[in-house]
Amino acid sequence: MTQPTATLLISCPDERGLVAKFANFIYANGGNIIHADQHTDFSAGLFLTRIEWQLEGFNLPRELIGPAFNAIAQPLNAKWQLHFSDTIPRIAIWVSRQDHCLFDLIWRQRAKEFAAEIPLIISNHPHLKEVAEQFGIDFYHIPITKDNKAEQEAQQLELLQKYKIDLVVLAKYMQIVSADFVARFPQIINIHHSFLPAFIGANPYHRAFERGVKIIGATAHYATPDLDAGPIIEQDVVRVSHRNQVEDLIRKGKDLERVVLARAVRLHLQNRVLVYSNRTVVFE
Amino acid sequence: MTQPTATLLISCPDERGLVAKFANFIYANGGNIIHADQHTDFSAGLFLTRIEWQLEGFNLPRELIGPAFNAIAQPLNAKWQLHFSDTIPRIAIWVSRQDHCLFDLIWRQRAKEFAAEIPLIISNHPHLKEVAEQFGIDFYHIPITKDNKAEQEAQQLELLQKYKIDLVVLAKYMQIVSADFVARFPQIINIHHSFLPAFIGANPYHRAFERGVKIIGATAHYATPDLDAGPIIEQDVVRVSHRNQVEDLIRKGKDLERVVLARAVRLHLQNRVLVYSNRTVVFE
Amino acid sequence: MTQPTATLLISCPDERGLVAKFANFIYANGGNIIHADQHTDFSAGLFLTRIEWQLEGFNLPRELIGPAFNAIAQPLNAKWQLHFSDTIPRIAIWVSRQDHCLFDLIWRQRAKEFAAEIPLIISNHPHLKEVAEQFGIDFYHIPITKDNKAEQEAQQLELLQKYKIDLVVLAKYMQIVSADFVARFPQIINIHHSFLPAFIGANPYHRAFERGVKIIGATAHYATPDLDAGPIIEQDVVRVSHRNQVEDLIRKGKDLERVVLARAVRLHLQNRVLVYSNRTVVFE
Amino acid sequence: MTQPTATLLISCPDERGLVAKFANFIYANGGNIIHADQHTDFSAGLFLTRIEWQLEGFNLPRELIGPAFNAIAQPLNAKWQLHFSDTIPRIAIWVSRQDHCLFDLIWRQRAKEFAAEIPLIISNHPHLKEVAEQFGIDFYHIPITKDNKAEQEAQQLELLQKYKIDLVVLAKYMQIVSADFVARFPQIINIHHSFLPAFIGANPYHRAFERGVKIIGATAHYATPDLDAGPIIEQDVVRVSHRNQVEDLIRKGKDLERVVLARAVRLHLQNRVLVYSNRTVVFE
Repeated sequence: MTQPTATLLISCPDERGLVAKFANFIYANGGNIIHADQHTDFSAGLFLTRIEWQLEGFNLPRELIGPAFNAIAQPLNAKWQLHFSDTIPRIAIWVSRQDHCLFDLIWRQRAKEFAAEIPLIISNHPHLKEVAEQFGIDFYHIPITKDNKAEQEAQQLELLQKYKIDLVVLAKYMQIVSADFVARFPQIINIHHSFLPAFIGANPYHRAFERGVKIIGATAHYATPDLDAGPIIEQDVVRVSHRNQVEDLIRKGKDLERVVLARAVRLHLQNRVLVYSNRTVVFE
Repeated sequence: MTQPTATLLISCPDERGLVAKFANFIYANGGNIIHADQHTDFSAGLFLTRIEWQLEGFNLPRELIGPAFNAIAQPLNAKWQLHFSDTIPRIAIWVSRQDHCLFDLIWRQRAKEFAAEIPLIISNHPHLKEVAEQFGIDFYHIPITKDNKAEQEAQQLELLQKYKIDLVVLAKYMQIVSADFVARFPQIINIHHSFLPAFIGANPYHRAFERGVKIIGATAHYATPDLDAGPIIEQDVVRVSHRNQVEDLIRKGKDLERVVLARAVRLHLQNRVLVYSNRTVVFE
Repeated sequence: MTQPTATLLISCPDERGLVAKFANFIYANGGNIIHADQHTDFSAGLFLTRIEWQLEGFNLPRELIGPAFNAIAQPLNAKWQLHFSDTIPRIAIWVSRQDHCLFDLIWRQRAKEFAAEIPLIISNHPHLKEVAEQFGIDFYHIPITKDNKAEQEAQQLELLQKYKIDLVVLAKYMQIVSADFVARFPQIINIHHSFLPAFIGANPYHRAFERGVKIIGATAHYATPDLDAGPIIEQDVVRVSHRNQVEDLIRKGKDLERVVLARAVRLHLQNRVLVYSNRTVVFE
Repeated sequence: MTQPTATLLISCPDERGLVAKFANFIYANGGNIIHADQHTDFSAGLFLTRIEWQLEGFNLPRELIGPAFNAIAQPLNAKWQLHFSDTIPRIAIWVSRQDHCLFDLIWRQRAKEFAAEIPLIISNHPHLKEVAEQFGIDFYHIPITKDNKAEQEAQQLELLQKYKIDLVVLAKYMQIVSADFVARFPQIINIHHSFLPAFIGANPYHRAFERGVKIIGATAHYATPDLDAGPIIEQDVVRVSHRNQVEDLIRKGKDLERVVLARAVRLHLQNRVLVYSNRTVVFE
């Protein structure tokens, strides 16, 4: 499956014949569909689909696929994205002091669990500079204070442009990214702990321990101006017991965080996540 | 979503344009697709799909849908099934002495978790006659011995015909159904315990206990002449510990068995399971 | 293991020698311990333990065990409960219109998964009267309005006394029990849905669907005046996807609720749950 | 909790008063128990316990604890081990070509998830030499063939002695260790894949894919001469679907393997695992 493919992610108002129309576009141009999945959200009246096909033998040259498809999409009021599997996305990983998610993402990228380059690490702390050097990744220490946030975000944005970054992964960045920043660079995936019930505010693991929860969780989602309320990509949980101290909860939480974040990043990079109305469809 | 729908389950050798061809068949006849999912098994060279659409507004009358689709399917060497959501399937539940799966299936049917009738219970023991009566279901006690198996299976087959049964659910029937029987009535779902590692033979829970397993499981599958080796529909597991005695393993196993069996029956009744090469595609 | 046993649940300020003191009490009186487990909560400075031993061969007659143990417990400022396994607890199940937890508890009690009698069902709706009759359980329809709550709770309390109830199980009762009631009858287990993040207020399943959560959960806990904030006994979760409609979430939630509630009830009835500081230790 | 502690792991024929006897030994010498857990296997007639207490304030000097306890243990026919938390165990990790478990164990050791030194990596392949160097760990390439196994095992054994190794972790070593080797160095933890049903022999992931399993698992266990049949320490599973190719199963399997192996190693290093009759008690 190493031949290059193209993937369309489409959402449009539901009507009859959409599957046929989109499939015909591929078929009429000689394309071989290798993955197609669709979902209709009846309450929203939306049709959402993912179509992946082999570029070999496809009659349209790459640069014409978008314009040609647009002629079909526009009358349907469809929103769409087109991706090519051999265009390797570039990731910036933002960290704070914890290294578990960073190490995990780097290991998976080297193990080819997903196709991406990781040329840039940004941190508000200097602690993980050595890890970056160990793996030959550029590291920028950009400390954030109440007073310098706007300037620092301007510098961060500049770096994202300079390094041609497609996706920012907040791998335990522990800082709120401003609404303005998210508006300018919306491709951001964040990971955070989740509890039943939820604990708002500081020291959630301590409060979960005090409450005696029997399960802790982690949620990976796209960042939105309301940081922890963006569209959810992936979640998972692990059991805990009264024998687990706060440190055990934190340790188990780390294991969850890195697995859940890695799954979300991989799904995103394979163009399997379609966002609408603050929700996601994940075409697994 | 209580309007009647039609569902096609199709498997055919993979080639270009299949999605378009099948979608066009529905679209050209004015059908509104409400669920479509497909899967390509590249190692088997097979395309597998499930399409469900609303009958209201569809231009073909019911009795012509099959013949019309066959004209498309035949040149593609496609195997297909057609189901109508308002044709309520009839289930026979076969039990032995344990009632947990039986109770669960009856409760779910009454709670309308799936659309089916349950007119018939068959058992090789008399123990659950009262349960059958309590819920107004006909009960036949057909004891099986080494000597009478062939005759008894003939009687069972007769009952399935008399009651117009579409699906047999072996809800802890604890008897091997003969290859001959399966050949004559292949629509059978079975539930059995599963362990890591597997324990062949008698008293598997005792042997799992002795081996100190930390996880026990249950598997629901279609029956084949090799009883426990048929296509798997659903599996699940639960953790156990050294504190769990054999009886605890059995108790936890029961909880698993009823949930796993119920999920498999529901998926089958919604025509979401497609079997090929002793495997299943489950279009969830 | 059908011989009668005694169980002590003890919590006291941590100090040296507690394990030895409690074990010696049993040993010196000729008792055979069959289960002992302890836990120290260092942040609270509390020692918590469960000891179960066979009554056969124990030198103290039943009525003297409590007083004798109290002589040891008092100098340690220990709180303790003593239970005998052949004293069968009596449960009242309170329901509203949904029957899934009710059916499940009754089935498990008949299957002897826990030792208890269920002589009483109370509901604010008449719908499940037939189920009660089917199983020969007394049913009281006590409708609650804003105006009659105090009187109705008085009647409920009277019934609990008349039927000598030890434990109330709110099996989807869907009504808030007053703080006053909980103060008078504190042995109440409740089940409710749980989400990551949490959704406060009406229609939580609809809001979880809108939020696109990938996991839903259920929590069983003791009731406190702040109804959904009592000590958690058991929790569990199940995965959901974008394919799941609100009804699917509700259906999957029901399966969770009945399993989680049944586990909690069983743990409580086996005297395995010790409450302190709004948390539980579960001696599994 | 960074004060040094002592831990006793004891198994002995069950009789009355064992909890009291063992607790008294600690108490009478002024010890403060911080964790005690016990389990009785009634079918085996065995009492198994773990007791951990603070060394500070304990009246016996370290070198006398063993002899003093032995005087109690011998009349009871008890087997016992004594561990001190500030004696840091030394681990040798044996690998083949795959690095996922190796990386994970090193990361966790650096993150202080368990207290151990990792001075030695042994491999039958040269591929992971660089990883070893990156983390400053000695690496020995000891290729194994049918003909040289005995000599190579002699060299491996010599290295274990030279490096004063306490525990060998087979982190996807992919070679069978001889019965003779296990007899000489029995402290070995292995990880391997697990399936429901089990697949014996080569290419298990391919065969699990062909069988269409819905769940895959991993098992960590102590090595025994019958390599994959030793006492199980930990197991876990993950769901797979028809959408998952063989490579996906392998990828998901890797995630499981590293988590399950890490948990088992951690439990062992904390002296929480007691082996008897080819089973384990895990005092979590």
